[in-house]
Amino acid sequence: MVNYQPAALDRTFAALADPTRRALLARLDEEPGASVSELARPFPVSLPAIMKHLDVLSDAGLIVRTKTGRTVSCRLNPAPMEQAMNWLAHYERYWTEQLDRLAAFLEQDQWPAPPASSSSASSRPRRKKSTKRGPSRSR
Amino acid sequence: MVNYQPAALDRTFAALADPTRRALLARLDEEPGASVSELARPFPVSLPAIMKHLDVLSDAGLIVRTKTGRTVSCRLNPAPMEQAMNWLAHYERYWTEQLDRLAAFLEQDQWPAPPASSSSASSRPRRKKSTKRGPSRSR
Repeated sequence: MVNYQPAALDRTFAALADPTRRALLARLDEEPGASVSELARPFPVSLPAIMKHLDVLSDAGLIVRTKTGRTVSCRLNPAPMEQAMNWLAHYERYWTEQLDRLAAFLEQDQWPAPPASSSSASSRPRRKKSTKRGPSRSR
Repeated sequence: MVNYQPAALDRTFAALADPTRRALLARLDEEPGASVSELARPFPVSLPAIMKHLDVLSDAGLIVRTKTGRTVSCRLNPAPMEQAMNWLAHYERYWTEQLDRLAAFLEQDQWPAPPASSSSASSRPRRKKSTKRGPSRSR
């Protein structure tokens, strides 16, 4: 069973489960070190609401806040995202294998050749790519 | 700003934010098509609690349940995980760049050469790897 610091993963995934919080991370990606008020500006929610979202991101370790005088600036901390991605990567073979099978299907004839006298060629799937066989094959 | 079907991502990340649900996915990875009662067996929680977790996973599209007679079997559906991973992959450069910088540091001298008369060589970091420069350089 996969096990990557369960409580940390809980906090990371929970923090990422909100579109405003994901948008805040995206803004910090574009504007590293943005202040809390700069971050809050484009969002149609109150500053206290943004502060709460930043608390959740900070508790999950996804951002680091630094106070300079009266200004609090934020920067992204990617380490928890890397752990989340490592957890998901365990399942990556599902979609890469699906892609591999699709690629194999497109690359070579995966279907048994029909009997020479067959007249049911219409039931065979359309081929995306021509093979090296000559035009004389019975399709 | 990154945008991958926000509501679907909300559900995926929220579903993954619980260790029991992640463990259920891990079990379905090991035992595809396991029945609900088989899935519930190793967990120290009630069957109704497991059913609720399975509801959350199903609502997020992470599992598919099939009823055959009185048995409900589950299988993993990886598509939402792939979307979550694609979202996280946007930030992947943060940790790959960190690794690249570390590799570059270990591969080559990142430090300015000291004045020829310097006697403070002891404060410089140990070098992991020798360079191609000859032994005559002033270190």
